[in-house]
Parts: sequence; structure tokens; C-alpha cells
Amino acid sequence: MNPEITFILVRPQLPENIGAVARAMANFALHDLRIVNPLCDILDKKAVATATGADYLLGNAQVFDSVEAATADLHWLYGTCATMRHMIKEYLPLPIAIQEITEQAESAKIGILFGPERTGLENDILSRCHKIIQIPVDPDFSSINLAQAVILIGYEWFKQTKLFESNFNHGQTTLATQATTQRFLDDLEQDLDQTNYWREIHKKPLMWQNLQNIFTRLQLTEQDLRSLRGVLQSIKRSTSLSEPD
Amino acid sequence: MNPEITFILVRPQLPENIGAVARAMANFALHDLRIVNPLCDILDKKAVATATGADYLLGNAQVFDSVEAATADLHWLYGTCATMRHMIKEYLPLPIAIQEITEQAESAKIGILFGPERTGLENDILSRCHKIIQIPVDPDFSSINLAQAVILIGYEWFKQTKLFESNFNHGQTTLATQATTQRFLDDLEQDLDQTNYWREIHKKPLMWQNLQNIFTRLQLTEQDLRSLRGVLQSIKRSTSLSEPD
Repeated sequence: MNPEITFILVRPQLPENIGAVARAMANFALHDLRIVNPLCDILDKKAVATATGADYLLGNAQVFDSVEAATADLHWLYGTCATMRHMIKEYLPLPIAIQEITEQAESAKIGILFGPERTGLENDILSRCHKIIQIPVDPDFSSINLAQAVILIGYEWFKQTKLFESNFNHGQTTLATQATTQRFLDDLEQDLDQTNYWREIHKKPLMWQNLQNIFTRLQLTEQDLRSLRGVLQSIKRSTSLSEPD
Repeated sequence: MNPEITFILVRPQLPENIGAVARAMANFALHDLRIVNPLCDILDKKAVATATGADYLLGNAQVFDSVEAATADLHWLYGTCATMRHMIKEYLPLPIAIQEITEQAESAKIGILFGPERTGLENDILSRCHKIIQIPVDPDFSSINLAQAVILIGYEWFKQTKLFESNFNHGQTTLATQATTQRFLDDLEQDLDQTNYWREIHKKPLMWQNLQNIFTRLQLTEQDLRSLRGVLQSIKRSTSLSEPD
């Protein structure tokens, strides 16, 4: 079991955003969603629809009537805000914040707060946060919405968990053995000898090296080699048919 | 100028997704959007609305009638797909793919292909891609939509660009000088001496060290120290008022 982090939405306005937050969290194995004074029904059908299967997160979400109540059991609070406020507060770029949070989460409970869609977190709430997570964006176009912030933070968090590694132990290609590869190359060489591909025989060593390099670069599988062998045979067949005897 | 990468949407269905893709790209300084056979008007008002200011990307998007035409000038093609196909192809976890792409982009043009919302890229198109980018998600809940895939890939790309660094050279706190800090600590110590805070004087050295540690840990600014000095004065004032003479 990985340590969890808690996402706290403060006065979210749109059910489709709440649903999209649930979906984003579920993708990254995050399940502790808390909502402070939602301005809509968090089980509204639009919320359920945009959660696309993660609506169990909406059903399990705890609703509170104050940030204080929603965060009472947590140790570290991170705020999110789209724009830099005039506030003396440590702004951490998302990847750096997640490194810190991952270490803290070993021994403490972490909450990440998200403000209302239109205004973001009030300064009063930000001042209660220990640090602020800043999502890096193009300074010329900065427009991250609630669910996008959640998905980016969730993604960075997920990359640090054990589940991330478990994602990538499949889909390996199984290389052909050297024996199969050699048989294919021998056949090809023989065909090329017979069709006088090299033209001048002293050029053959270098030309053959270059061709072999193409095939070794390909990381061919047994099936690939059977396919290529079929290609050669098919070309030879049609050539011998079309050639005058 | 950073190297660019090209995002190619193949037969996107929903204008709001195309708009969300444009918005996601603009956040991460990506501007080369190409669309193959869109199944809707890419300048539909829903697309423009969800682009929230990045609709210039929709206006500039090139529309093609085949993947071949859309990718003709590119060197490396990366496919995206939600599920593992039975195909011999290198699947790269997003962070690793972006490292590779960043190196390739120094000298070659890169295209990343995204399939239709419902079905993803057909195997026929995937087989034309050099590699496949896999977005790491919880194996128990994997549901990333088109715009979410774009925002995650855009974000990882952006982190490798020079613009990322430029994002974080502001918002530094300016620490108080040691002289100001010392004046505050001296005043505090004097107040505590006068109010007999230490009770037993031999405990003072350790207690005072602990208190000093709290204040140095705070990374206080000049303004913070003025505020704290005000707090102390206010408490002293009310205390001396309420104390019987």
C-alpha cells in the first residue's frame, strides 16, 4: 500500500469539474477526496458522467463546512493557485513539490487544496497552507483549470509510487535468437550472391556489413524473421516466373 | 527558441476536445497542431469556448486528408494508445519517451499522433509509428481522454524546455538581515527575562536555544519581524493594563 495524499476542493462550482477531478484522481490511484461547501450537488448527473467510472470517488467524498474541519487530521497543507499572490510563501514548481511531498508522506498526512474555479483559493486559506504548488506553464499563456491541475499533480505523484513501476513490466518484445537471425542472414546473403547484388565482389564485405547493420538494428523477433523470409521467397518466386528461361 | 514538436489528431470527433487540446498545448508552449479528417468543424463555437484564449491554435491548425500527408515532413512518429495492442512495438513510459524525444528534437522533427476519442489509433497507423508513448496510470482504473493525454505529454515536454526554468525565478522570499533578526531576538529575550518565563534560570540556555530555533526555521522577512514585534508590544501593553498596580 502506497501512502495516500488528500485532495481538498474548496467551494467547487461545476459538477462536471468535480467529476473530472474524480476521474483524474482514480487514474493515479488517489482516493481521498474532500469537498468544502460545494456550490452544487457533487452527485449531480453531470458529475457522475464526467467521472466515467470513478463516480465511487464522488460517493465516498467527505463534505465539510470549513477548510479547518476538512484538514483537521492532516499535517502538511499545500495550496494551489494559478497566479502569484503578493504573499510571503514558498512557491514550489510541481515536480519539486512532489519530491518533497513524497518524502513527507512517509510519516505525515498531506493535503492539497484547490480553490473555486473562478477565483482560486482566497489569500486567507493560502496563508494557512505551508507551501504553494506552482504548475509550470508558458508565461505567455497560462490557463490551467481545476481538473487539469488535479491531473498534473496526480500524475507527478503517481510517478513516485510503486504502482508506476508496475505499469511497465509488460509489452516487451521477444527478440529472435541469434541462430534464427543467422539463418535468415545466410539465406539473404546466398540470394544476393546468386543475383549478383554486389556487382563488384571487392565491395561485398562493406555492403554486407551495412545490410547486416540494418537488420540487427531492427531488434527482430522470430515472427518478424518468418515474415521477412516469406517476403524474400515471394519476390524470388515472382522474379523467376517473370524471367525468361 | 525551443525546438517544437507536432501534435496530430486523427479523426477527432468532439469540438470541445479539440478546443481542450489547443488550450493544453498553449499552456505548454506548443503550437504546431495538425488534424487529419476531423469529424466536426474545428472552429465550432464549442471548440473555441473550450480553447479559452488558445483558439488562435485552432485557426492556425493545418487540416490534412491522410496521416501520410500530415506527417510527410516529420522524422520520428510516436503513437499514443490507451491499451496495449498485440503488436511488436516499443512502448515507452511517458517520462522516458520525452527524454528521448527531447534529444531527437535537437536535429529532427517529431510528431505525436492521437487517435479518435472512441477507438484510439488504428493498428494500421500505430504500425507506422516508430514507438508508442504510454501514459502511466493505475492499472485498476485507466481512463485518460484525448485532452488529458495531450496535457500530460505537453507538461512533460515543457519541463525539458528552457521556458520551464524561466517560470521559477520569481516569488522568492527576501530574508530579514541578521541584524534585524538579532534585534527582535534581543527584545524577546529581555521580555521573557522580565516576565520570568524561564522559571528556573539554569533551564534558560536550552529553552532559549529551542525558541531561537523556531524563529530561525521560519525564514522571517523584515516585514514578518515588524509584525511579530507588534504582536509582542500589543500583548505587553494589554498585560500591563490588566495587571493590578
